[in-house]
Amino acid sequence: MFSYMGRVLELDLTKGKATPMTLSEDLVKRFIGGRGIGASFLWDLLKPGVDPLSPENVLIFSVGPLTGTSAQSSHRWVAQFKSPLTTTYFRSVGGGFFGAELKFAGYDAVVVRGRAERPTYVYIENDVVEFRKADIVWGMTTDATRDFLRDETSKDSKMVVIGPAGERLVRISAIVTDDMRTAARGGGGAVMGSKNLKAIVVKGSSRPTIYDEDAFREVVKEQVERFVKNPVFERLKAFGTDGSCYPFYTLGHFPTYNFKQLELDNIEAFRIENLTKYMVKHYGCYGCMIRCGKVFKLTEGPYAGVVWDFPEYETHWSFGGNLGITNVEAITVANMLCDKYGLDTISTGVVIGLVYELYEKGIIGRKEIGGLDLRWGDPEPMVNLVRKIALREGIGDILAEGVKRAAEALGRGAERFAMHVKGLELPAYDPRSAKANGLNLVTSPIGASHTMGWNSYEIAGIPQKMDPLSVEGKAEITKYVQDRVALIETGVFCTLPWNRWMMDEELYSRMLYAATGIREFNDVKYLLLVGERIFNLERLINAREGIDGKYDKAPLRIVKEPVPRFPSKGQVFEEEILLKDYYRARGWDERGMPTRGKLNELGLSEVKPASTRIDVK
Amino acid sequence: MFSYMGRVLELDLTKGKATPMTLSEDLVKRFIGGRGIGASFLWDLLKPGVDPLSPENVLIFSVGPLTGTSAQSSHRWVAQFKSPLTTTYFRSVGGGFFGAELKFAGYDAVVVRGRAERPTYVYIENDVVEFRKADIVWGMTTDATRDFLRDETSKDSKMVVIGPAGERLVRISAIVTDDMRTAARGGGGAVMGSKNLKAIVVKGSSRPTIYDEDAFREVVKEQVERFVKNPVFERLKAFGTDGSCYPFYTLGHFPTYNFKQLELDNIEAFRIENLTKYMVKHYGCYGCMIRCGKVFKLTEGPYAGVVWDFPEYETHWSFGGNLGITNVEAITVANMLCDKYGLDTISTGVVIGLVYELYEKGIIGRKEIGGLDLRWGDPEPMVNLVRKIALREGIGDILAEGVKRAAEALGRGAERFAMHVKGLELPAYDPRSAKANGLNLVTSPIGASHTMGWNSYEIAGIPQKMDPLSVEGKAEITKYVQDRVALIETGVFCTLPWNRWMMDEELYSRMLYAATGIREFNDVKYLLLVGERIFNLERLINAREGIDGKYDKAPLRIVKEPVPRFPSKGQVFEEEILLKDYYRARGWDERGMPTRGKLNELGLSEVKPASTRIDVK
Repeated sequence: MFSYMGRVLELDLTKGKATPMTLSEDLVKRFIGGRGIGASFLWDLLKPGVDPLSPENVLIFSVGPLTGTSAQSSHRWVAQFKSPLTTTYFRSVGGGFFGAELKFAGYDAVVVRGRAERPTYVYIENDVVEFRKADIVWGMTTDATRDFLRDETSKDSKMVVIGPAGERLVRISAIVTDDMRTAARGGGGAVMGSKNLKAIVVKGSSRPTIYDEDAFREVVKEQVERFVKNPVFERLKAFGTDGSCYPFYTLGHFPTYNFKQLELDNIEAFRIENLTKYMVKHYGCYGCMIRCGKVFKLTEGPYAGVVWDFPEYETHWSFGGNLGITNVEAITVANMLCDKYGLDTISTGVVIGLVYELYEKGIIGRKEIGGLDLRWGDPEPMVNLVRKIALREGIGDILAEGVKRAAEALGRGAERFAMHVKGLELPAYDPRSAKANGLNLVTSPIGASHTMGWNSYEIAGIPQKMDPLSVEGKAEITKYVQDRVALIETGVFCTLPWNRWMMDEELYSRMLYAATGIREFNDVKYLLLVGERIFNLERLINAREGIDGKYDKAPLRIVKEPVPRFPSKGQVFEEEILLKDYYRARGWDERGMPTRGKLNELGLSEVKPASTRIDVK
Repeated sequence: MFSYMGRVLELDLTKGKATPMTLSEDLVKRFIGGRGIGASFLWDLLKPGVDPLSPENVLIFSVGPLTGTSAQSSHRWVAQFKSPLTTTYFRSVGGGFFGAELKFAGYDAVVVRGRAERPTYVYIENDVVEFRKADIVWGMTTDATRDFLRDETSKDSKMVVIGPAGERLVRISAIVTDDMRTAARGGGGAVMGSKNLKAIVVKGSSRPTIYDEDAFREVVKEQVERFVKNPVFERLKAFGTDGSCYPFYTLGHFPTYNFKQLELDNIEAFRIENLTKYMVKHYGCYGCMIRCGKVFKLTEGPYAGVVWDFPEYETHWSFGGNLGITNVEAITVANMLCDKYGLDTISTGVVIGLVYELYEKGIIGRKEIGGLDLRWGDPEPMVNLVRKIALREGIGDILAEGVKRAAEALGRGAERFAMHVKGLELPAYDPRSAKANGLNLVTSPIGASHTMGWNSYEIAGIPQKMDPLSVEGKAEITKYVQDRVALIETGVFCTLPWNRWMMDEELYSRMLYAATGIREFNDVKYLLLVGERIFNLERLINAREGIDGKYDKAPLRIVKEPVPRFPSKGQVFEEEILLKDYYRARGWDERGMPTRGKLNELGLSEVKPASTRIDVK
């Protein structure tokens, strides 16, 4: 028998009933944990074609076999659901302390179904599960909700909550932890909102069991040693993801002006030496010595006095470069508003980018946007629009639907300027400047998510350099990276330290085996096959929703308009060639669907039920 | 020997030196504690004529003999200093948990002198006193400062801090506790700012000694019984000071439109049944079962999601009725900004009232006020101006000087619309509608402070009714109430329960005697004489600064313009008659100065040094 918590809690909000279940051994072997388990549950439980904002949608929170152990950087949690933004399968990953606490309460996953009649939060303290009234916190920002729910439960409670945006079913709303980490993408906040679920609050007192304590201690020791002697570790520790703003801009990422990719005046503002002056504190997620979180203090301009979590690289971009804005103070405040209201900073910035460009082109007028004068680089209207989107005020009510739906609703050719894949807004990378990275954005089952296949080869030359502008070999490397990320997120690991020197598959396999005693995990090839299995299963869930290769599609601008600035000057995204290669590398047919042979190879020809129901205690 | 902590901590910021001292028995007998002790220290230590924002100003925090005991509602703390707003002696009283904690650390008072070279905070943990660098928290809002300083000291630390307004020497800036209670009036925040003192953080572990435990337990039991069976207790507990907005308006208080006193449209918004819907939580200061604090939740309009301490009666007025505004959401947000930036809500609202009226009269133009369109009743520019004042942005830089200096700086007859006495902005009471209450505002040594002599007879008919519009007998009742408040603030009691049924002098004398064993305190007449002694000593400090009866002066509007609305229609404030009566009742000469005979009666003919210095441990 292997060592694994293996407990899942099903919450039926309609009936107000909590049912603990056990994971089958077969399922754990095939999917490990985290994202794998969640995808498998969704395959089993989600009826195709349901409205993502209906009680029929299923929302799964999961952690993995290393969560809550002494391993470093492996304590994230995964939210999976059918997305109200993309109508695809979706997975969104969050940090903080919620994942570890869920494990301490004795659960590897929570499956949320139905819809509560009234605003509700669920309080889980080990085996005791309560459905509680959330009337008082309904309507509150995330931070106020946290404070109130800690008063009502325990000052040590960890939780996931939604803000006013999720309550208002904003399709780009986030799920937010007590410490303002987010599973931001895909509208998970709206899924919780549609279920009248304001929060899941957890307090646990057990610790995960380890199969071989001595071996595990040794492998974690090795992991820590590898961390501390790596320069990437020091850089992340010192600067977080902020360190990437300026260098990535020079490499052709950090797209400017809604992907027009013009030179950005005052890009100097994002040089790390100009950002460190804002940093007043470092903080980290549970069990992570990187502590990439930074706190910014603003002392000048209209936002002086504000102290908040720094805007990550993506947020510096979405509210910054993407809008021609280099005012760090305003970007920090926009980030704060997103955390408080519960919004995805990437999607919110991109949808604002759409209106900035539509206004520039004269496609929408000042009256339509509540009198705002949207000039590239002007931060005030941006901050204003964030609030309007969260509260669905004026034009915000249209933008709250996400960039694809907003452009369709506005009409007049607005779709040309809506930067998304499958409805998910593009992140801070230009497919034209890094082709494998772009290929991931286009093919990812959840739309343009950088995290599903962030290509360190092309972007950072890690573990080895690769010409980002060439199309050669990009299909294979994209497949490898995507499968590997799926594997990483079974842990549930953070991808930041996965640079070969700090973390790699080999070290992971030893950690997994020592922790669980599952012999199969002691084999890197087996693990990568699990990653591929997960990725293909996600594709199958989409197929069931009618979403196939036709949706693997970059915005027209990316395919047609050459980049005007160095070093990607003249480049477009060679979508057709890249996709053809990619489907072949994946063993998929020309419609982008896994072949029967591939499914057999992955053991997906007949997907088994994910769980065995057991009686409530 | 009586029972009294009797320790004072002198903090010399210039030298970075902390010196504990003991209070002399004589001083305690003559001044009891709190405001009495502080006034006595200021008399001894403050050199006349010093710039209030220079290192020579002295800032005293004090508590009293009942602080930290089991007595109810007696745990406030007093800040005393020469005011940068009024240049008079000043006293400002705050609540929360700071006072009790200071006592637990073993101190009855802290005397702050000098100026630190760099931003500093002082951490007091019992006998250990540290001057610590405050560079990181300098520039932060009060709530962020609190969080950071708790991280640096203890999560249980209590503190007084300043926000960006105090740092910027805004003359209407407040001193704010960790739980957002304020000693708001008179610019204490700027005094701390001028001393480079961001915070005083306290953690204590002792408890005050009680002279006669049994007797004290009995008298507190009686106090609690009197509280719970009184309907005023229930009302304060249910509604806080918010319950007064609507009824006080109907009685001619809650002045409208910068004291033009026109009927206020939509006053219904302030009916208590329309305010209770915002309340989501009750909270109280240390050792107070009234728990008058309420938390408001905003769910509509542009501020939806905000959760913050409710605006007290005064704040509903200063940002509400005073500006013709009845938007409770915007008033709550203005209140929140004042707490975060560290501003006095009364003074800030009144100084904004000045610009609203100057704009209406065409005395200042749109350009001068940063393009704002200041229409009575429009909340947006009000919220905007609060921020500008705190940060000294644009017109805010002038308004940050307080209404008197701002009007002088603007010139063009602006002084006519500056509502203040001695430079302190008027509160939510119209001297024309309650003459004794008005007489207090005019004669109080600190300027127009309602708390120095709030007249329950006139305003609430407690303990008995009195015609508020008559001038008869108003001098005597004003003197009595002012002296009694001085006495109340030796405890340091909150004035709210002092309605004869809940608290009165007789009960107080028994509490004081049981707590201290000082026989003299077991005599109501003696206690009231202490109150009168304190009030006269405050007057003497002012006299030393050249501030005499000439400064007992209501704004012209109050003296000349009859009130246009019921029930005070046609009334003006009969200043000359009232003052003449008052000086006589006080035993003062026609210049408003205590006569030699009065000083002898009060034992103030020769004021003794306040303390005996002892060596540092």
